[in-house]
Amino acid sequence: MAQRLIVIGGDAAGMAAASQARRRRGRDDLEILAFERGHFTSYSACGIPYWISGTVEERDDLIVRSPATFREEHQIDVRTRTEVTGIDLDRREVVARDLDRGGEVRERFDTLVYATGAVPTKPDWARDEVGGVFGVQTLDDGAAVREWLDAEPKPRRAVVVGGGYIGVEMAEALVQRGLSVTLVEQGEQPMSTVDPDMAALVATAMRGLGIEIRTGVRVTGLEERDGRVVAVVTDAGSLPTDVVVLGLGVRPNTALAAAAGLPVGTTGGVRVDRRMRVPGMPDVWAAGDCVETLHRVSGMAVHVPLGTHANKQGRVVGINIGGGYATFPGVIGTAVTKVCDLEVGRTGLREREAASAGFEFVTVRSESTSRAGYYPGARPMTVKLIAERPTGRLLGAQIVGRSEAAKRIDALAVALWNGMTVDDMTALDLGYAPPYAPVWDPVLIAARKAVDALAK
Amino acid sequence: MAQRLIVIGGDAAGMAAASQARRRRGRDDLEILAFERGHFTSYSACGIPYWISGTVEERDDLIVRSPATFREEHQIDVRTRTEVTGIDLDRREVVARDLDRGGEVRERFDTLVYATGAVPTKPDWARDEVGGVFGVQTLDDGAAVREWLDAEPKPRRAVVVGGGYIGVEMAEALVQRGLSVTLVEQGEQPMSTVDPDMAALVATAMRGLGIEIRTGVRVTGLEERDGRVVAVVTDAGSLPTDVVVLGLGVRPNTALAAAAGLPVGTTGGVRVDRRMRVPGMPDVWAAGDCVETLHRVSGMAVHVPLGTHANKQGRVVGINIGGGYATFPGVIGTAVTKVCDLEVGRTGLREREAASAGFEFVTVRSESTSRAGYYPGARPMTVKLIAERPTGRLLGAQIVGRSEAAKRIDALAVALWNGMTVDDMTALDLGYAPPYAPVWDPVLIAARKAVDALAK
Repeated sequence: MAQRLIVIGGDAAGMAAASQARRRRGRDDLEILAFERGHFTSYSACGIPYWISGTVEERDDLIVRSPATFREEHQIDVRTRTEVTGIDLDRREVVARDLDRGGEVRERFDTLVYATGAVPTKPDWARDEVGGVFGVQTLDDGAAVREWLDAEPKPRRAVVVGGGYIGVEMAEALVQRGLSVTLVEQGEQPMSTVDPDMAALVATAMRGLGIEIRTGVRVTGLEERDGRVVAVVTDAGSLPTDVVVLGLGVRPNTALAAAAGLPVGTTGGVRVDRRMRVPGMPDVWAAGDCVETLHRVSGMAVHVPLGTHANKQGRVVGINIGGGYATFPGVIGTAVTKVCDLEVGRTGLREREAASAGFEFVTVRSESTSRAGYYPGARPMTVKLIAERPTGRLLGAQIVGRSEAAKRIDALAVALWNGMTVDDMTALDLGYAPPYAPVWDPVLIAARKAVDALAK
Repeated sequence: MAQRLIVIGGDAAGMAAASQARRRRGRDDLEILAFERGHFTSYSACGIPYWISGTVEERDDLIVRSPATFREEHQIDVRTRTEVTGIDLDRREVVARDLDRGGEVRERFDTLVYATGAVPTKPDWARDEVGGVFGVQTLDDGAAVREWLDAEPKPRRAVVVGGGYIGVEMAEALVQRGLSVTLVEQGEQPMSTVDPDMAALVATAMRGLGIEIRTGVRVTGLEERDGRVVAVVTDAGSLPTDVVVLGLGVRPNTALAAAAGLPVGTTGGVRVDRRMRVPGMPDVWAAGDCVETLHRVSGMAVHVPLGTHANKQGRVVGINIGGGYATFPGVIGTAVTKVCDLEVGRTGLREREAASAGFEFVTVRSESTSRAGYYPGARPMTVKLIAERPTGRLLGAQIVGRSEAAKRIDALAVALWNGMTVDDMTALDLGYAPPYAPVWDPVLIAARKAVDALAK
């Protein structure tokens, strides 16, 4: 008789695990059942701001594979709008509720994949009954924002709360939709995913686009009229608005896991071993935004919700369930984002993170250009490196530039991944031709500067 | 009394060495004299095709630092239009001739840097007395081509001989200048710097631009009228033309070195140790297009004339002469180029090179896109990987794509530099956001495919 795999959560991690397991084990060997609370499977949540802005035209463009595709081409029994409400590890059963028709089923499993994703942080003041207040985590969220923006009376002003990736991307999207946008950030600066000196470059560009940035401001409530939001109340006064977007980050969705006794780490994510197996539970695996993972530079557990990790982790789970061998060796915190006409990239540790991990280090910042200075289209670029003292080992890197900047972080990420020193990096054989780089690539210029700083 | 450094050759390698030495040792400690045969110092030879095409407007845009700058800001006594004609290692003297005014000087040195660059391959049939036949190695060459193209009668047809980087770039440049261009390549295909399957993509794009490509054809002579070229004679007939550009590669310029007894390797380049010192000659250093260097993947000596290596090597020489410690650990054959609207990148070994180095390997080719498929501007990209069997170690990579393709080779180059396996590479934490990459970056997709191929 076939064994039975149950996947809880039908997005990137869960469906990557299911597909990989299916590639290795046919349906006579492994029955696969996947439960998804929402309407969709495997879509690009990272694309939602671009759909809201109109850069991406159709919702379905964001859907990688539909439930029907999984059923027909991969023989995976996907049940959407079905929420798993309990896991019984002793009886090897999950309890699931049909969200549309009601009713509960119990389903037996031999192997379980926990891939429930993350839940957005929602402050108390963001009450459901006030219209015009949105998160942007799911396709349904995206559809709701679009509908609100298109409906009469047309919103003219927007407040984005939180200056992380989503907040910044949404601020840009709303400007593109013609709204007058204010970004409220409780901390010192938006874009705190890079160091303050680099984030300042981003803030300047955002202001140049007409986005008003209010930092050090805490939202305390909402004002409403006829069930619609009309203002955001802060500890520094009231901000009139027609729509509020929340970009306050997410936390691992582990309610079910904790109730079932799966171990949850200090980051709030489910703990997993190198093969993405839940420690001590040979038939239970977890992947994606609900787990914590090793940061390879700090050596600490971190929670980094990002589609690329979710896909990789899901693949690892699927290979292992399929009888192969694969590990997920952790992350180094690489991220890229487009903010207005700026490109921003980072990898490794920021200064603050490096300090709190106990490192001593030097930092350098160098200015260069994306192409040979004389080649048309050459644009300025700032590269910042953080290197351990005295070893010279790269600990982190950040790039802000106007074009051809963000993905340059990849070369630095691979160098960091391999534990290179900045001295070693000065010799790296990177691609050179005038349309693509100066004869000393910006990455190499920064490495040279770091070598000089270490010698002082 | 100050010691005396003489640099032979005032381009990238020589002047990088001189500048770095100066940074570390003041003029009271080290007198620096640099001889350059041409009019210019430190210019971008790689930029010449773009100057000829008109993409770069002014010749002086290509000049990084002028002789005057070196003299005034770096206290380096640069003597242009002065050719070194002999090196006397026993007496520690060089003999130099003033090319404009005539006359010879002998100059004493304590330390010598040999940085004479490369000389273009010039076949017997390319006689100097026939007008309209050009190399494109120096700024003077570039100026001569521009003058010829601008003069009456305006050339309408061009033949480019040789399909390497320079040949391909010049073919494109001449098309941009409105000429009807034929590229003649003796081998199977132009762009043999990548494997034939990848080069075929480039050839198709070139034909799309109207460039006629004749492969397997050998040039045997020229036809002239009134001292001007009117046709190129080949073993497959005659090709009428108004201008001929030679792109037949270069060889190390080692005549002086060999005469003085410096060791020359099997590649024809001057041999150097890891610090770029000539073995057995403690006060003689060499750098740039005149030396041979270690290929870190094949373990063999290679001659790779490229500005980025020349600059790095010159820097290493200068640091060492300055009393510091630096090494040049070799190259891995990374190169990028723009060919019409294609971007081409390579690193490591091609299939043929891998085979002749004795490796067993698998190759994979994968198709993907530069950005998330749904994000506007996503363009197709082909990534090829060559991985050692059975270890999985990356041996080489090639990329051909329409945009945001070429510099993706850098992440692969850093992975190769560090000896990563394709299996390790599937976990690499590369930058992901919809405007910059699909959730699986093309590099990661290729690595996954290589893992599958190794398992077969």
